Amino acid sequence: MTTAAVIGCGLIGTSVGMALMQAGWDVYLSDAHQAVVGTAVRRGAGVPLDDRQASMPVDLAVVAVPPLVIARTLKEVQRQDLALTYTHVCSAQSHVQHEVEALGCHLPSLVGGHPLAGRERSGPAAAVADLFVGRPWAICPNAESTPQAVDAVRELVTAVGADAVELPAEEHDAAVARLSHLPQVVSSALAASLLEAGGTASPWAQLAGPGLIDTTRLAASDPDMWLQILELNANQVAPAVQALGERLLQVSAALLALGQPAAPAEVAQAAAEVRRLLREGNEGRSWVPVKRGAASDAFGAVRVTVSDEPGRLAALLADAGAALVNVEDVHVEHVPGRPTGIIELAVGVTDVPRLVTELRTRGWAVAEPED
Amino acid sequence: MTTAAVIGCGLIGTSVGMALMQAGWDVYLSDAHQAVVGTAVRRGAGVPLDDRQASMPVDLAVVAVPPLVIARTLKEVQRQDLALTYTHVCSAQSHVQHEVEALGCHLPSLVGGHPLAGRERSGPAAAVADLFVGRPWAICPNAESTPQAVDAVRELVTAVGADAVELPAEEHDAAVARLSHLPQVVSSALAASLLEAGGTASPWAQLAGPGLIDTTRLAASDPDMWLQILELNANQVAPAVQALGERLLQVSAALLALGQPAAPAEVAQAAAEVRRLLREGNEGRSWVPVKRGAASDAFGAVRVTVSDEPGRLAALLADAGAALVNVEDVHVEHVPGRPTGIIELAVGVTDVPRLVTELRTRGWAVAEPED
Repeated sequence: MTTAAVIGCGLIGTSVGMALMQAGWDVYLSDAHQAVVGTAVRRGAGVPLDDRQASMPVDLAVVAVPPLVIARTLKEVQRQDLALTYTHVCSAQSHVQHEVEALGCHLPSLVGGHPLAGRERSGPAAAVADLFVGRPWAICPNAESTPQAVDAVRELVTAVGADAVELPAEEHDAAVARLSHLPQVVSSALAASLLEAGGTASPWAQLAGPGLIDTTRLAASDPDMWLQILELNANQVAPAVQALGERLLQVSAALLALGQPAAPAEVAQAAAEVRRLLREGNEGRSWVPVKRGAASDAFGAVRVTVSDEPGRLAALLADAGAALVNVEDVHVEHVPGRPTGIIELAVGVTDVPRLVTELRTRGWAVAEPED
Repeated sequence: MTTAAVIGCGLIGTSVGMALMQAGWDVYLSDAHQAVVGTAVRRGAGVPLDDRQASMPVDLAVVAVPPLVIARTLKEVQRQDLALTYTHVCSAQSHVQHEVEALGCHLPSLVGGHPLAGRERSGPAAAVADLFVGRPWAICPNAESTPQAVDAVRELVTAVGADAVELPAEEHDAAVARLSHLPQVVSSALAASLLEAGGTASPWAQLAGPGLIDTTRLAASDPDMWLQILELNANQVAPAVQALGERLLQVSAALLALGQPAAPAEVAQAAAEVRRLLREGNEGRSWVPVKRGAASDAFGAVRVTVSDEPGRLAALLADAGAALVNVEDVHVEHVPGRPTGIIELAVGVTDVPRLVTELRTRGWAVAEPED
C-alpha cells in the first residue's frame, strides 16, 4: 500500500487524490481552508491529514498549492518530516527551483512536477479522477534529486494514468512558454482585439465562425491564475511573445504593400512574405500532436440531420449498432435557434455506404456521403 | 419551381447545388473543368448546364469561382443573359465590387454574397448539402442592386438553411478581417513559431496540450486560397494585424520587466499591463457566440471510461436511452496509444445522478460526477 499526502485541494490536488484512491493508494488531504478539505473528502479524494494517527512519513507528498507559495509550503512540510519524497505541480519550474534553494529545502527528496491537464472550471468540485489519463506529466529533477525520489514521482504519474516526460527545469519552462503560455497570450490578445470591433451590438458578431471560437477559447481562462504563471515564467515567455509580435508587424507591412498600388517587384516580395507565413504555419501545425478522429483517412463521416428531441441521439446510435457498424466518434452540431441538429458519426471508410443505406432504411435523414 | 445555375463546382458551389436540389430547386452546373462538373453531378448537385434545353434565363446564377476570376466570370455570364439575378461567393466584397464596376457589369441584377462556412477539405468530393445549415451568409447589395435581386439572394440563403446577414461590402470586409482573416494570420504565425522550437524531435512536442491544438487548427488551411483572400482584403486585414503585433510587443516588454529585478512601481505597472490583457481577453471572448453544449449550466457531464472496442459507444448510448435519459451531447476522448477512451455524455443536470447510478448498475466505469 502506497501512502500519499496532497497539500492543497484545488482542481489538481483533488483530482490527484481521486485518481490515487482509485489506484488503491492511501491518500491524506490538507488545505489552508478546512471547507475545501471537506469537499475533497466528499469527492473521494482521501481522508483529512489532520485525522491521521500514524507518525511515519507518508511515501509521497504532492504540494498542489498556488505557485507563489509552493516553496514555503515545501519548507514547512519537510520540517514536519511529512514524507519520504516531495513533489509539486507548477507550470514554471525554474522559479520554484530557485526559491526552494534559497529557502534551504531538502533537495535530494524533492522532484518538481507539472501535469499538462486542466479544465475551464477550477476548485475541488470540478475535480475528476480521470483528469490526467493519457496526458503528459513533466518530471523535473533537480541536481540533487535521488533516483529513488524520481522513481516515486514516476509511480505517482503512472498511478493517475498520465505519461511521464522527464526533462530539466529550464527545458520544461522553454517548452511550456512556447506550447502553452504563448498560445494563452495570443488568444487573449486576439479576443481583446474584438473589443475595438464594436462588440455584439454590431452585425459583426453574427459573422463569427468556428475559427474565431477555437482561437479565442483560451482567452476565457482565469486572469489571476495566468498572471501568476506568466510572471513566474516571464523570462521564457517574453522573447516568444516579442518574436511573434515582430512577425505580425512584418506580415502587416507586407499586407499593406499588397493593398496599395506598388511596383511589381514590391508586390511579389510582399506576397512571398505572406505565403511564407501560411506555409510555415502548415508545417508548424503538422508538428502538433492531434488526436486521431474523424479527420483521419481511415474514417469517413456520416452526417444525419435530426430533430432536437429527447432520445434522438441514443436512437441513432442504437440503429447504427443494430447495423453492426462501429461508431468511432460522434460530433453533435446544435444549430442555435433551430429545432434541428446535425450529428456526424465517424466510422471506418468501408462502413460508410452500408451505414448510410441502413440508416436511410430506418428513416433517418442522412446526407449524401463524401466521395 | 426555382431554377439556379452554379458556376464553379468546388466545395462551396457543389454544396450549394446539393442543398438547392434537396430544397426542390432545378440546378444547372458549370465549371472550367468538365471532370469537376461530373463529380458534382454524381454528388446530386444538379445537371450539366451544357445539357440545358431552355433558352429562358434561370432565376439565379451563383458564381462560385476563385476570387480573382469572379468579376470576369460575372461579365461573361451576364453577356449570355444566363440569369435574372446574379450573386457570387467571396470573402472580400469591396474588391469584387470595384472590379465589376470597372468591367461594366450590370449592377442592378447583381448582389454580393459570402457564406461563412467551409471545411478543412476542398473540392466537389468534400461537398455536403448541410454545409450552410445554421451558418451566417452575408448579403452585400451594391448601390444599384434592385430589391427583387436582394430578395432572390435571400431566397437562396433560406433554401440552403443559412441565416442571411445583410450589410454593406465595406462593413463586411472590416468584420471578416477581424473575425476570420486576423485569426487565420495569428494561427499561422503561432504554428510557424513552433518551427523555431525544434520540432517533434525534441521532447517539447510531447508536452503539447489541447490549447495549442485549438489555437493552431486554422494554420492547416490552404496557403494558396488564403493568400488570395488576404491579398484581396489586405487594406482591412493589415491594420488589424499591425494592432495585434503592437499589442504583443507591449505585453512582451511588460513580461520582460516582470522577469527582471526592477523597481516596485515598474513591476506593478508591468503586472497591470498583463492583467489588462487577460481581462480584456475574457471580455472579448464573452462576445464570441459559442454554441450551447456541455459547458452550459443547464447540462452536466457524465464521464465513462470505456475500452476502445467496436460497439462500446453504441452500447453506452443504448444503456443511457434505456435509462430514459436524454443525451444532449457526446464527446469522445481517444487516448493515444492506450486501449481505452473516455466518453463524456452531456445530460440535463437533474439527470446526472440517475444516469450515473443506472450506468454503474449496468457495469460501466463511470467517474464520480462533479458537485
